[in-house]
Amino acid sequence: MNFCSICGSPVTLKIPPNDNLLRYVCIKCSAIHYQNPKIVVGAIPYWNESSNGKILLCRRAIEPRYGFWTLPAGFLENNETTGQAAVRETYEEAQARIDLLSLYTILNVAHAHQVHLFYRSNLLGLDFSPGIESLDVQLFSESEVPWDKIAFPTVTKTLELFFQDLSESNRLGKAFGFYTLDIEKKLPVNN
Amino acid sequence: MNFCSICGSPVTLKIPPNDNLLRYVCIKCSAIHYQNPKIVVGAIPYWNESSNGKILLCRRAIEPRYGFWTLPAGFLENNETTGQAAVRETYEEAQARIDLLSLYTILNVAHAHQVHLFYRSNLLGLDFSPGIESLDVQLFSESEVPWDKIAFPTVTKTLELFFQDLSESNRLGKAFGFYTLDIEKKLPVNN
Repeated sequence: MNFCSICGSPVTLKIPPNDNLLRYVCIKCSAIHYQNPKIVVGAIPYWNESSNGKILLCRRAIEPRYGFWTLPAGFLENNETTGQAAVRETYEEAQARIDLLSLYTILNVAHAHQVHLFYRSNLLGLDFSPGIESLDVQLFSESEVPWDKIAFPTVTKTLELFFQDLSESNRLGKAFGFYTLDIEKKLPVNN
Repeated sequence: MNFCSICGSPVTLKIPPNDNLLRYVCIKCSAIHYQNPKIVVGAIPYWNESSNGKILLCRRAIEPRYGFWTLPAGFLENNETTGQAAVRETYEEAQARIDLLSLYTILNVAHAHQVHLFYRSNLLGLDFSPGIESLDVQLFSESEVPWDKIAFPTVTKTLELFFQDLSESNRLGKAFGFYTLDIEKKLPVNN
Protein backbone atom coordinates (compact mmCIF):
# COMPACT_ATOMS: atom_id res chain seq x y z
CA MET A 1 0.00 0.00 0.00
CA ASN A 2 1.42 3.37 -1.10
CA PHE A 3 -1.53 5.74 -1.41
CA CYS A 4 -4.70 6.59 0.53
CA SER A 5 -7.70 4.99 -1.18
CA ILE A 6 -9.93 7.86 0.02
CA CYS A 7 -7.95 11.02 -0.93
CA GLY A 8 -5.05 9.69 -3.06
CA SER A 9 -2.27 11.16 -0.91
CA PRO A 10 0.73 9.06 0.19
CA VAL A 11 0.40 6.86 3.28
CA THR A 12 2.98 6.23 5.98
CA LEU A 13 3.37 3.34 8.42
CA LYS A 14 2.78 4.40 12.01
CA ILE A 15 1.08 3.36 15.23
CA PRO A 16 -2.15 5.38 15.65
CA PRO A 17 -3.18 6.75 19.08
CA ASN A 18 -4.65 4.05 21.40
CA ASP A 19 -3.28 1.32 19.13
CA ASN A 20 -0.18 -0.89 19.36
CA LEU A 21 0.32 -2.05 15.77
CA LEU A 22 1.77 -0.33 12.72
CA ARG A 23 -0.97 0.80 10.31
CA TYR A 24 -1.00 2.57 6.98
CA VAL A 25 -2.09 6.14 7.80
CA CYS A 26 -2.74 8.90 5.23
CA ILE A 27 -0.35 11.85 5.65
CA LYS A 28 -3.08 14.26 4.51
CA CYS A 29 -6.54 13.09 5.63
CA SER A 30 -5.23 10.86 8.50
CA ALA A 31 -7.45 7.93 7.45
CA ILE A 32 -6.22 4.67 8.99
CA HIS A 33 -6.20 1.76 6.52
CA TYR A 34 -6.53 -1.44 8.56
CA GLN A 35 -5.53 -4.74 6.95
CA ASN A 36 -7.19 -7.88 8.27
CA PRO A 37 -7.33 -11.61 7.48
CA LYS A 38 -9.69 -12.91 4.82
CA ILE A 39 -12.09 -15.82 5.10
CA VAL A 40 -11.88 -18.75 2.67
CA VAL A 41 -14.96 -21.01 2.60
CA GLY A 42 -15.28 -24.41 0.99
CA ALA A 43 -17.34 -27.60 0.91
CA ILE A 44 -16.64 -31.33 1.17
CA PRO A 45 -19.07 -32.64 -1.49
CA TYR A 46 -19.82 -36.24 -0.51
CA TRP A 47 -21.22 -38.94 -2.81
CA ASN A 48 -22.21 -42.31 -1.34
CA GLU A 49 -21.65 -44.77 -4.18
CA SER A 50 -22.70 -48.33 -3.33
CA SER A 51 -21.38 -47.85 0.24
CA ASN A 52 -18.00 -46.63 -1.05
CA GLY A 53 -17.94 -42.96 -0.01
CA LYS A 54 -16.32 -40.54 -2.44
CA ILE A 55 -15.59 -36.81 -2.31
CA LEU A 56 -15.34 -34.29 -5.14
CA LEU A 57 -12.03 -32.55 -5.83
CA CYS A 58 -11.14 -29.84 -8.36
CA ARG A 59 -7.80 -29.56 -10.17
CA ARG A 60 -6.78 -25.90 -10.09
CA ALA A 61 -6.55 -23.94 -13.37
CA ILE A 62 -5.18 -20.86 -11.57
CA GLU A 63 -2.25 -19.87 -9.39
CA PRO A 64 -1.34 -20.41 -6.65
CA ARG A 65 -0.92 -24.20 -6.92
CA TYR A 66 -1.91 -24.53 -10.59
CA GLY A 67 -2.50 -28.22 -11.42
CA PHE A 68 -2.93 -29.31 -7.80
CA TRP A 69 -6.18 -30.69 -6.37
CA THR A 70 -8.43 -28.91 -3.90
CA LEU A 71 -11.86 -29.00 -2.33
CA PRO A 72 -14.04 -26.32 -3.96
CA ALA A 73 -13.40 -23.14 -1.94
CA GLY A 74 -12.85 -19.42 -2.27
CA PHE A 75 -13.00 -16.02 -0.61
CA LEU A 76 -16.14 -15.05 1.28
CA GLU A 77 -17.75 -12.02 -0.41
CA ASN A 78 -19.42 -9.03 1.25
CA ASN A 79 -23.18 -9.47 1.85
CA GLU A 80 -22.87 -13.26 1.81
CA THR A 81 -22.99 -15.86 4.60
CA THR A 82 -20.33 -18.54 4.94
CA GLY A 83 -22.92 -21.19 4.01
CA GLN A 84 -23.91 -19.31 0.86
CA ALA A 85 -20.22 -18.99 -0.09
CA ALA A 86 -19.66 -22.76 0.23
CA VAL A 87 -22.59 -23.49 -2.10
CA ARG A 88 -21.57 -20.76 -4.56
CA GLU A 89 -17.91 -21.80 -4.75
CA THR A 90 -18.87 -25.45 -5.28
CA TYR A 91 -21.06 -24.44 -8.20
CA GLU A 92 -18.50 -22.01 -9.68
CA GLU A 93 -15.52 -24.37 -9.48
CA ALA A 94 -17.20 -27.73 -10.14
CA GLN A 95 -20.64 -26.83 -11.55
CA ALA A 96 -21.85 -29.13 -8.77
CA ARG A 97 -25.02 -28.85 -6.69
CA ILE A 98 -24.85 -29.68 -2.99
CA ASP A 99 -27.02 -29.91 0.11
CA LEU A 100 -25.09 -28.13 2.83
CA LEU A 101 -24.64 -29.97 6.13
CA SER A 102 -22.84 -28.69 9.24
CA LEU A 103 -19.62 -26.72 9.48
CA TYR A 104 -16.78 -29.25 9.80
CA THR A 105 -13.40 -27.52 10.13
CA ILE A 106 -12.08 -24.06 10.93
CA LEU A 107 -8.38 -23.70 10.25
CA ASN A 108 -6.24 -20.69 11.10
CA VAL A 109 -3.57 -19.93 8.51
CA ALA A 110 -2.21 -16.94 10.41
CA HIS A 111 0.95 -16.46 8.32
CA ALA A 112 -1.18 -16.23 5.14
CA HIS A 113 -3.66 -13.86 6.82
CA GLN A 114 -6.50 -16.32 6.24
CA VAL A 115 -9.05 -18.41 8.11
CA HIS A 116 -10.40 -21.43 6.20
CA LEU A 117 -13.85 -22.95 6.81
CA PHE A 118 -15.11 -26.22 5.31
CA TYR A 119 -18.69 -27.50 5.42
CA ARG A 120 -19.80 -31.10 5.04
CA SER A 121 -22.28 -31.49 2.19
CA ASN A 122 -24.07 -34.06 0.08
CA LEU A 123 -23.52 -33.97 -3.66
CA LEU A 124 -26.94 -33.89 -5.35
CA GLY A 125 -25.99 -35.43 -8.71
CA LEU A 126 -23.19 -36.48 -11.02
CA ASP A 127 -23.76 -33.63 -13.50
CA PHE A 128 -20.59 -31.78 -12.43
CA SER A 129 -17.89 -30.38 -14.71
CA PRO A 130 -14.89 -28.03 -14.44
CA GLY A 131 -15.73 -24.37 -13.86
CA ILE A 132 -13.50 -21.63 -15.29
CA GLU A 133 -10.99 -21.93 -12.42
CA SER A 134 -10.70 -25.74 -12.68
CA LEU A 135 -8.89 -28.02 -15.15
CA ASP A 136 -10.70 -31.16 -14.01
CA VAL A 137 -13.26 -32.32 -11.45
CA GLN A 138 -13.38 -35.91 -10.18
CA LEU A 139 -14.79 -38.10 -7.42
CA PHE A 140 -12.24 -39.88 -5.20
CA SER A 141 -12.51 -42.55 -2.53
CA GLU A 142 -9.98 -42.29 0.32
CA SER A 143 -7.48 -44.58 -1.39
CA GLU A 144 -7.86 -42.77 -4.73
CA VAL A 145 -7.20 -39.25 -3.36
CA PRO A 146 -3.97 -37.80 -4.89
CA TRP A 147 -2.57 -37.08 -1.42
CA ASP A 148 0.78 -35.79 -2.74
CA LYS A 149 -0.95 -33.43 -5.17
CA ILE A 150 -3.26 -31.57 -2.79
CA ALA A 151 -3.02 -27.79 -3.16
CA PHE A 152 -3.24 -26.60 0.46
CA PRO A 153 -2.49 -28.03 3.94
CA THR A 154 -5.98 -27.00 5.12
CA VAL A 155 -7.51 -29.26 2.44
CA THR A 156 -5.23 -32.19 3.33
CA LYS A 157 -6.06 -31.85 7.04
CA THR A 158 -9.80 -31.55 6.37
CA LEU A 159 -9.79 -34.62 4.10
CA GLU A 160 -7.80 -36.69 6.64
CA LEU A 161 -10.28 -35.84 9.39
CA PHE A 162 -13.26 -36.44 7.11
CA PHE A 163 -12.24 -39.93 5.98
CA GLN A 164 -11.38 -40.88 9.58
CA ASP A 165 -14.81 -39.71 10.79
CA LEU A 166 -16.46 -41.37 7.78
CA SER A 167 -14.85 -44.69 8.66
CA GLU A 168 -15.83 -44.42 12.34
CA SER A 169 -19.32 -43.34 11.34
CA ASN A 170 -19.71 -46.40 9.09
CA ARG A 171 -18.17 -48.89 11.51
CA LEU A 172 -19.28 -47.56 14.89
CA GLY A 173 -22.15 -45.19 14.13
CA LYS A 174 -20.11 -42.33 15.60
CA ALA A 175 -21.21 -38.79 14.77
CA PHE A 176 -18.99 -36.50 12.69
CA GLY A 177 -16.91 -34.06 14.76
CA PHE A 178 -16.20 -30.36 14.44
CA TYR A 179 -12.58 -29.26 14.46
CA THR A 180 -10.67 -26.02 15.04
CA LEU A 181 -7.01 -26.19 14.03
CA ASP A 182 -4.01 -23.95 13.54
CA ILE A 183 -1.82 -24.55 10.47
CA GLU A 184 1.79 -23.67 11.18
CA LYS A 185 4.00 -22.25 8.46
CA LYS A 186 6.29 -24.97 7.15
CA LEU A 187 9.97 -24.05 7.18
CA PRO A 188 11.89 -24.55 3.91
CA VAL A 189 13.52 -27.99 3.72
CA ASN A 190 17.04 -26.54 3.78
CA ASN A 191 16.45 -24.36 6.83
CA MET B 1 -12.72 3.91 -2.29
CA ASN B 2 -11.66 6.58 -4.79
CA PHE B 3 -7.99 5.94 -5.53
CA CYS B 4 -5.69 2.98 -6.20
CA SER B 5 -3.67 2.20 -3.06
CA ILE B 6 -0.78 0.94 -5.22
CA CYS B 7 -0.29 3.71 -7.83
CA GLY B 8 -2.57 6.54 -6.59
CA SER B 9 -4.64 6.81 -9.80
CA PRO B 10 -8.46 6.93 -9.71
CA VAL B 11 -10.39 3.66 -9.51
CA THR B 12 -13.61 2.76 -11.29
CA LEU B 13 -16.28 0.17 -10.45
CA LYS B 14 -16.39 -2.63 -13.01
CA ILE B 15 -16.68 -6.40 -13.34
CA PRO B 16 -13.22 -7.85 -14.10
CA PRO B 17 -12.79 -10.68 -16.65
CA ASN B 18 -13.88 -14.12 -15.29
CA ASP B 19 -15.68 -12.43 -12.40
CA ASN B 20 -19.34 -11.62 -11.79
CA LEU B 21 -19.19 -8.90 -9.13
CA LEU B 22 -18.41 -5.18 -9.35
CA ARG B 23 -14.90 -4.45 -8.05
CA TYR B 24 -12.81 -1.30 -7.66
CA VAL B 25 -10.31 -1.44 -10.54
CA CYS B 26 -7.47 1.06 -11.14
CA ILE B 27 -7.88 2.95 -14.44
CA LYS B 28 -4.08 3.10 -14.84
CA CYS B 29 -2.39 -0.03 -13.39
CA SER B 30 -5.53 -2.25 -13.60
CA ALA B 31 -5.07 -3.52 -10.03
CA ILE B 32 -8.29 -5.08 -8.67
CA HIS B 33 -9.08 -4.02 -5.11
CA TYR B 34 -11.22 -6.76 -3.57
CA GLN B 35 -13.25 -5.99 -0.46
CA ASN B 36 -14.10 -8.89 1.84
CA PRO B 37 -15.75 -9.47 5.21
CA LYS B 38 -13.78 -9.07 8.40
CA ILE B 39 -13.58 -11.48 11.32
CA VAL B 40 -14.52 -10.35 14.83
CA VAL B 41 -13.34 -12.66 17.64
CA GLY B 42 -14.42 -12.60 21.26
CA ALA B 43 -14.53 -14.62 24.46
CA ILE B 44 -17.17 -15.59 27.02
CA PRO B 45 -15.15 -15.22 30.23
CA TYR B 46 -16.82 -17.49 32.79
CA TRP B 47 -16.47 -17.28 36.56
CA ASN B 48 -17.99 -19.99 38.75
CA GLU B 49 -18.84 -18.21 42.01
CA SER B 50 -20.27 -20.54 44.68
CA SER B 51 -22.15 -22.46 41.98
CA ASN B 52 -23.68 -19.26 40.59
CA GLY B 53 -22.10 -18.93 37.15
CA LYS B 54 -21.23 -15.39 36.02
CA ILE B 55 -19.83 -13.96 32.81
CA LEU B 56 -17.75 -10.85 32.25
CA LEU B 57 -19.14 -7.98 30.16
CA CYS B 58 -17.53 -4.70 29.11
CA ARG B 59 -19.39 -1.37 28.76
CA ARG B 60 -18.21 0.23 25.52
CA ALA B 61 -16.25 3.51 25.65
CA ILE B 62 -16.24 3.79 21.85
CA GLU B 63 -18.69 3.99 18.96
CA PRO B 64 -20.56 2.17 17.64
CA ARG B 65 -22.85 1.45 20.60
CA TYR B 66 -21.09 3.70 23.15
CA GLY B 67 -22.35 2.88 26.65
CA PHE B 68 -23.77 -0.53 25.73
CA TRP B 69 -22.49 -3.83 27.11
CA THR B 70 -20.57 -6.45 25.13
CA LEU B 71 -18.47 -9.55 25.50
CA PRO B 72 -14.80 -8.64 24.97
CA ALA B 73 -14.22 -8.90 21.20
CA GLY B 74 -12.51 -7.21 18.29
CA PHE B 75 -11.12 -7.56 14.78
CA LEU B 76 -8.75 -10.44 14.05
CA GLU B 77 -5.32 -9.09 13.10
CA ASN B 78 -2.96 -10.36 10.41
CA ASN B 79 -0.47 -13.02 11.67
CA GLU B 80 -2.76 -13.96 14.56
CA THR B 81 -4.98 -17.00 15.15
CA THR B 82 -8.61 -16.64 16.22
CA GLY B 83 -7.74 -18.14 19.62
CA GLN B 84 -4.93 -15.62 20.13
CA ALA B 85 -7.30 -12.79 19.18
CA ALA B 86 -9.88 -13.89 21.78
CA VAL B 87 -7.24 -13.88 24.54
CA ARG B 88 -5.76 -10.55 23.38
CA GLU B 89 -9.10 -8.74 23.11
CA THR B 90 -10.15 -9.96 26.56
CA TYR B 91 -6.96 -8.55 28.02
CA GLU B 92 -7.15 -5.26 26.07
CA GLU B 93 -10.80 -4.51 26.85
CA ALA B 94 -11.10 -5.94 30.37
CA GLN B 95 -7.50 -6.43 31.53
CA ALA B 96 -8.72 -9.96 32.25
CA ARG B 97 -6.77 -13.22 31.98
CA ILE B 98 -8.57 -16.29 30.60
CA ASP B 99 -8.01 -19.95 29.85
CA LEU B 100 -9.43 -20.49 26.38
CA LEU B 101 -11.85 -23.40 25.93
CA SER B 102 -13.57 -24.47 22.70
CA LEU B 103 -15.07 -22.31 19.96
CA TYR B 104 -18.74 -21.80 20.87
CA THR B 105 -20.53 -19.70 18.23
CA ILE B 106 -19.93 -18.55 14.66
CA LEU B 107 -22.38 -15.90 13.54
CA ASN B 108 -22.68 -14.49 10.03
CA VAL B 109 -23.50 -10.78 9.94
CA ALA B 110 -23.56 -10.61 6.15
CA HIS B 111 -25.06 -7.12 5.87
CA ALA B 112 -22.27 -5.73 8.06
CA HIS B 113 -19.59 -7.66 6.13
CA GLN B 114 -18.53 -9.49 9.28
CA VAL B 115 -18.30 -12.97 10.75
CA HIS B 116 -18.26 -13.13 14.57
CA LEU B 117 -16.63 -15.95 16.57
CA PHE B 118 -16.94 -16.45 20.33
CA TYR B 119 -14.89 -18.86 22.44
CA ARG B 120 -15.86 -20.26 25.81
CA SER B 121 -13.23 -19.50 28.43
CA ASN B 122 -12.55 -19.59 32.15
CA LEU B 123 -11.70 -16.33 33.87
CA LEU B 124 -8.46 -16.84 35.82
CA GLY B 125 -8.94 -14.19 38.50
CA LEU B 126 -10.93 -11.17 39.65
CA ASP B 127 -8.13 -8.67 38.92
CA PHE B 128 -9.93 -7.23 35.87
CA SER B 129 -10.52 -3.55 35.10
CA PRO B 130 -11.66 -1.42 32.14
CA GLY B 131 -9.22 -1.21 29.24
CA ILE B 132 -9.00 1.96 27.13
CA GLU B 133 -12.04 0.98 25.03
CA SER B 134 -14.25 0.18 28.04
CA LEU B 135 -16.09 2.40 30.55
CA ASP B 136 -16.75 -0.42 32.98
CA VAL B 137 -16.22 -4.18 33.37
CA GLN B 138 -18.49 -6.34 35.54
CA LEU B 139 -19.50 -9.93 36.28
CA PHE B 140 -23.15 -10.83 35.65
CA SER B 141 -25.26 -13.89 36.40
CA GLU B 142 -28.00 -14.66 33.87
CA SER B 143 -30.63 -12.66 35.75
CA GLU B 144 -28.26 -9.71 36.23
CA VAL B 145 -27.30 -9.34 32.54
CA PRO B 146 -28.52 -5.96 31.17
CA TRP B 147 -30.34 -7.70 28.31
CA ASP B 148 -31.81 -4.45 26.91
CA LYS B 149 -28.41 -2.76 26.93
CA ILE B 150 -26.38 -5.32 24.95
CA ALA B 151 -24.38 -3.75 22.11
CA PHE B 152 -24.76 -6.33 19.33
CA PRO B 153 -27.23 -9.09 18.36
CA THR B 154 -24.36 -11.59 18.07
CA VAL B 155 -23.53 -11.02 21.75
CA THR B 156 -27.19 -11.36 22.83
CA LYS B 157 -27.56 -14.60 20.88
CA THR B 158 -24.28 -16.03 22.20
CA LEU B 159 -25.22 -15.17 25.80
CA GLU B 160 -28.70 -16.71 25.44
CA LEU B 161 -27.22 -19.96 24.12
CA PHE B 162 -24.49 -19.97 26.75
CA PHE B 163 -26.82 -19.59 29.75
CA GLN B 164 -29.15 -22.23 28.31
CA ASP B 165 -26.27 -24.68 27.88
CA LEU B 166 -24.92 -23.74 31.31
CA SER B 167 -28.26 -24.56 32.92
CA GLU B 168 -28.54 -27.89 31.06
CA SER B 169 -24.92 -28.68 31.89
CA ASN B 170 -25.55 -28.05 35.61
CA ARG B 171 -28.90 -29.88 35.76
CA LEU B 172 -28.40 -32.73 33.29
CA GLY B 173 -24.65 -32.98 32.77
CA LYS B 174 -25.14 -32.13 29.08
CA ALA B 175 -22.10 -31.00 27.13
CA PHE B 176 -21.90 -27.47 25.72
CA GLY B 177 -22.85 -27.23 22.04
CA PHE B 178 -21.31 -25.45 19.07
CA TYR B 179 -23.52 -23.16 17.03
CA THR B 180 -23.41 -21.59 13.56
CA LEU B 181 -26.02 -18.88 13.04
CA ASP B 182 -26.98 -16.17 10.57
CA ILE B 183 -27.99 -12.79 11.97
CA GLU B 184 -30.55 -11.11 9.69
CA LYS B 185 -30.59 -7.37 9.32
CA LYS B 186 -33.42 -5.93 11.37
CA LEU B 187 -35.78 -3.74 9.39
CA PRO B 188 -36.58 -0.29 10.80
CA VAL B 189 -39.67 -0.34 13.01
CA ASN B 190 -41.65 1.87 10.60
CA ASN B 191 -40.93 -0.24 7.53
